[in-house]
Amino acid sequence: MQSDDVHLREAKQSGEKILEGKFLKAFRDVVSLPDGSHATREYVVHPGAVMVIPLFTGPDGKPHVILERQFRYPVGQVMIEFPAGKLDPGESVLACAQRELHEETGYTAIEWARAGVLHPVIAYSTEFIDIWFARQLTLGERMLDQGEFLDVFSASAEELIAWCTQGKVTDAKTLSGALWLQNVISGQWKLDWQTA
Amino acid sequence: MQSDDVHLREAKQSGEKILEGKFLKAFRDVVSLPDGSHATREYVVHPGAVMVIPLFTGPDGKPHVILERQFRYPVGQVMIEFPAGKLDPGESVLACAQRELHEETGYTAIEWARAGVLHPVIAYSTEFIDIWFARQLTLGERMLDQGEFLDVFSASAEELIAWCTQGKVTDAKTLSGALWLQNVISGQWKLDWQTA
Repeated sequence: MQSDDVHLREAKQSGEKILEGKFLKAFRDVVSLPDGSHATREYVVHPGAVMVIPLFTGPDGKPHVILERQFRYPVGQVMIEFPAGKLDPGESVLACAQRELHEETGYTAIEWARAGVLHPVIAYSTEFIDIWFARQLTLGERMLDQGEFLDVFSASAEELIAWCTQGKVTDAKTLSGALWLQNVISGQWKLDWQTA
Repeated sequence: MQSDDVHLREAKQSGEKILEGKFLKAFRDVVSLPDGSHATREYVVHPGAVMVIPLFTGPDGKPHVILERQFRYPVGQVMIEFPAGKLDPGESVLACAQRELHEETGYTAIEWARAGVLHPVIAYSTEFIDIWFARQLTLGERMLDQGEFLDVFSASAEELIAWCTQGKVTDAKTLSGALWLQNVISGQWKLDWQTA
């Protein structure tokens, strides 16, 4: 790995907003390329998001997780996903994780561990998704946003991982979460749990 | 899993193009929600893409993969990625996989296996990425597009998977590919190899 990546880096020369939607904001920048030539880059600006992998021990003594089923209009399908949501302005990633888990599923968790971050769409969005595990779950009442419709259910980690190879889970954040889940459960990857 | 998801589904009522960029095309649709109310959905329309996990046996006798390092302007970082690229109009996913592997890395492969598909950004893009494995690699000359700058390198599967937990790999398609890679190597997930 080189620390100096000048042969790869692009630098902003100018920029303009090309879309001010209700949800989507997009920009077009002119950038200088490593060889000195210029190109345009169009991308969505996103506030960032958080995904939660809510863990509990199932009646079979094995690790289970809380999941959601939600219709995703751009892909025209009901998708199986870990709970996730966008950061509010000024909100910390942990506060967002706690809020989204509670609002969407009704669960609160006593222990939290930050796993890492993922970038879903590096070609055309600034979006990042912070990845958190939650455990010691208590079920309360969920508080969906107006116009939000989703099913909450649970599955064993084994089931979820089988669904990934069967094509029943195709959401990239959830596939990335499954990689974390598999390696945390096997003991290969370590988490640093904190009481929230 | 219900087969009937009418309590989740959204249906298009009307739509308009809100962005005709050089690269990004976006639409805003009015949809009816399961309770009969209406909402707007804004999303990018994408032609779809293919990612390749190029496998070979390293000098240590262990599985290695071909990777790229590329500066990704929207996230402002050099990212470690599996080779990938967008479908040309009318192109099959396998033809795209072969073309992108060759153009970006210089490698051709004798054997190919389709693993599955992922959706990187289900909240606001139609994009899908078809996931392919390639093996029996031969190195030729790469043919980068004008203005395309990227490094090609190889790593053991073990190294790549370690980078995922260390935060050195955060690209969601590559994390999803690492899940596939880990389970294919362990023998848990099976591939159906074909000679191309």
